[in-house]
Amino acid sequence: MSGSYKLRGYVSLARELRAGSVSPRTYLEESLRLIAQLEPTIGAFVHLNREGARKAADAASERWRQGKPLSPIDGMPVAIKDIIETADMPTGQGSPLFEGDESHRDSASVHALREAGAVIIGKTTTTEFAASHPLHSTRNPHDPARTPGGSSSGSAAAVGAGMVPVGLGTQVVGSILRPSSFCGAIGFKPSVGAINRSGSHDHFSQSCQGAIGATLADVWAVLRAIADRAGGDPGFVGLSGNPDLATRRSPARLAVLETGGWGATSEGARQAFALARRKLAFVGIELRGRGDDPQIEALEQAIADAQPLTLAINAWEGRWPLNTYADRDADRLSASARERLRTAEAMTQDEYAGLLARRSAARATFAQVAAHYDAFVTLGACGAAPVGLGSTGNTAMNVAASLLGCPALTLPLLSDEGLPLGLQLMGATDRDAALFETASFVAANAFDRADLVGSLG
Amino acid sequence: MSGSYKLRGYVSLARELRAGSVSPRTYLEESLRLIAQLEPTIGAFVHLNREGARKAADAASERWRQGKPLSPIDGMPVAIKDIIETADMPTGQGSPLFEGDESHRDSASVHALREAGAVIIGKTTTTEFAASHPLHSTRNPHDPARTPGGSSSGSAAAVGAGMVPVGLGTQVVGSILRPSSFCGAIGFKPSVGAINRSGSHDHFSQSCQGAIGATLADVWAVLRAIADRAGGDPGFVGLSGNPDLATRRSPARLAVLETGGWGATSEGARQAFALARRKLAFVGIELRGRGDDPQIEALEQAIADAQPLTLAINAWEGRWPLNTYADRDADRLSASARERLRTAEAMTQDEYAGLLARRSAARATFAQVAAHYDAFVTLGACGAAPVGLGSTGNTAMNVAASLLGCPALTLPLLSDEGLPLGLQLMGATDRDAALFETASFVAANAFDRADLVGSLG
Repeated sequence: MSGSYKLRGYVSLARELRAGSVSPRTYLEESLRLIAQLEPTIGAFVHLNREGARKAADAASERWRQGKPLSPIDGMPVAIKDIIETADMPTGQGSPLFEGDESHRDSASVHALREAGAVIIGKTTTTEFAASHPLHSTRNPHDPARTPGGSSSGSAAAVGAGMVPVGLGTQVVGSILRPSSFCGAIGFKPSVGAINRSGSHDHFSQSCQGAIGATLADVWAVLRAIADRAGGDPGFVGLSGNPDLATRRSPARLAVLETGGWGATSEGARQAFALARRKLAFVGIELRGRGDDPQIEALEQAIADAQPLTLAINAWEGRWPLNTYADRDADRLSASARERLRTAEAMTQDEYAGLLARRSAARATFAQVAAHYDAFVTLGACGAAPVGLGSTGNTAMNVAASLLGCPALTLPLLSDEGLPLGLQLMGATDRDAALFETASFVAANAFDRADLVGSLG
Repeated sequence: MSGSYKLRGYVSLARELRAGSVSPRTYLEESLRLIAQLEPTIGAFVHLNREGARKAADAASERWRQGKPLSPIDGMPVAIKDIIETADMPTGQGSPLFEGDESHRDSASVHALREAGAVIIGKTTTTEFAASHPLHSTRNPHDPARTPGGSSSGSAAAVGAGMVPVGLGTQVVGSILRPSSFCGAIGFKPSVGAINRSGSHDHFSQSCQGAIGATLADVWAVLRAIADRAGGDPGFVGLSGNPDLATRRSPARLAVLETGGWGATSEGARQAFALARRKLAFVGIELRGRGDDPQIEALEQAIADAQPLTLAINAWEGRWPLNTYADRDADRLSASARERLRTAEAMTQDEYAGLLARRSAARATFAQVAAHYDAFVTLGACGAAPVGLGSTGNTAMNVAASLLGCPALTLPLLSDEGLPLGLQLMGATDRDAALFETASFVAANAFDRADLVGSLG
């Protein structure tokens, strides 16, 4: 049984769950067995709630037995990034200032998951305040000498190792896509506002809550279950579309993006991407890049400085709460957090207004190009996960989607240095379902990886 | 000295502060003396930090003495609605669930106020979660048998009583304008997003942080000091314009609105408004209403159901965190909070999408009309504060500005039953400074109340 759930995911077991040949409790025990085996090496979790999970899985097992599951994810073990509040476990935010901190409430997303019957199995490591400094020593499941990436380090490592089918993550720069690429998992950052962030400590205007999972069907089912019950951020309708993701959609035309990160990619990553382009072309998809379409060239120019622009926007928006944490105990902030605060305190409201105007212009350019292509394709990271645990790697290939506010998926279809590397697809803003349909076609038809798609069995 | 600061406000004392004839410490002591005298009757505060305030006032006094104030509000005592976090005082949210709850951090706005030198004097009462249920028995300073209004009950009562020059408030339906009208204070709800709400427990898409004050100059200076240092909500530039509010602007043309609340106004309030119209016309302002301009009629129709529409939007958006509080201890939620949660749990994402579409349409209609008028004028409340402390009164005259996301001011220029009643002005969204300039002209020139304007002396 080992490893099979990792590859197949949870919602694809619907037939077995209905028939009773698999129960949420047996699935959970397999997950706990894998955690017991792998966690000492990987260190993906800061808390596990084994007994709470068993109780929830038993209740789910009983509902499936009665033919009355609460949702397609009833009984699915889900890991929660430790920046997101949970009523039954502390929320440490990757900071010594908040270690063991209890809010006694679930985030909007975690509450929705419980309403849908999901089994909240534990909290996964995050870098400090979901930014850059790694407090924990989580290791890459494919090579323990390497970083899993961040900031959603633990969720990506736990999914990449096959310990859980899905983990929640958050992204404001590259915090879902990069670790997913490094750990060989599917990572999805939705359109801005698509998943209710309330009760998660990520307050940036580009921040998103998303998920990392073993299959597209699992990721989609989890996030649709959340949006159905908790909506998007206040003022946003939230992720919508068929929860079952039954469709694959053959894209006619993809726009190839280099983004500002291309210069930082490894030789191996570029070779892998060249091979991917050939596979996509082989199944009849037209690929056009900056040399083929002046609109794509204009977009490339608009996102060339996405990384410094995003870091400046985040600095201003992150002044609070860093300033109040510095008042409380500056010695327990990382050097990088103190540096971000210094940057913020030197900025003005007018400078921030200028940054927002540049972001709006980039988004307008993107919308124009997106109208002419089924999706955008690029690399999920600059290369394989780097060696060492002191840095979580370069965000350069991930920040464009964050700046643009569009949905982005990374699929574990490529490799570099014999390690996982993601193929990234970006879609038009608020057309997240269409991006999943395109991604399903790409994985199954161009890369022969139907196992990454999954389905309601 | 008693009462004079109430009328004159703080920033108008700039000349005396510079000359040393008034110091922040002497001003604070007068404020504390008034609090000692009036607070036993009114009950505006849940916490006072007298010693912290004295320490901050002494530091401010020293800065003025050296001719180096941090801002025009350096040394100003400011009261904080108890839904907004403060590092030195608990944040009770008007709920027994959170009585004495310490977050050990300032909200973005409170931190900015301290950076500007303001003296954070205490926390003021709020209804439960800044919604409708009054946990405390705060009394109206003009008649202790009557409600001060809510949810910013304590800030309005403290300012109306002259205990402090400014209090922070929040509004998502009518929580700043209504209590200000009832208590004879100036109330300002900015454009949506104009003041950073981070660290305040108001998560609704229409929520705003604003201020209640003795003079327009005080209110403007406080909010500009916040926006300068903390900006608006993430993704919004934030309130901008000259911090000094030196200008009065004669409006050529005002649009008179009834809003959906007109049917609920008292006879006395309607008479007071008729008199106000004559005063405005007398100084040469053209007034046009729904009978004079089909665009105004279209707007009246678009906002006729602002109250039920807003309550439905808030219900969906308020599902979290109410659901997690109900999990924790439903018996410590008010009956009205439990009812809101039941409403939310019966709603769907699609219904919410429909509500947002209706709100967007109303905002688009408003923007069209706003392009043709200097401002909008209506009543600040349905009438005088009602007798009794069990209800905080009807929001019907206040909800239109909340739904539209536009800036709105209420000025204590009218009366009903011999008690205060506000004249409400609404302006084009994100043109908050222009609204203050119009309001200054209206108060000083049409109503001969230059004392409500104030200035940097």
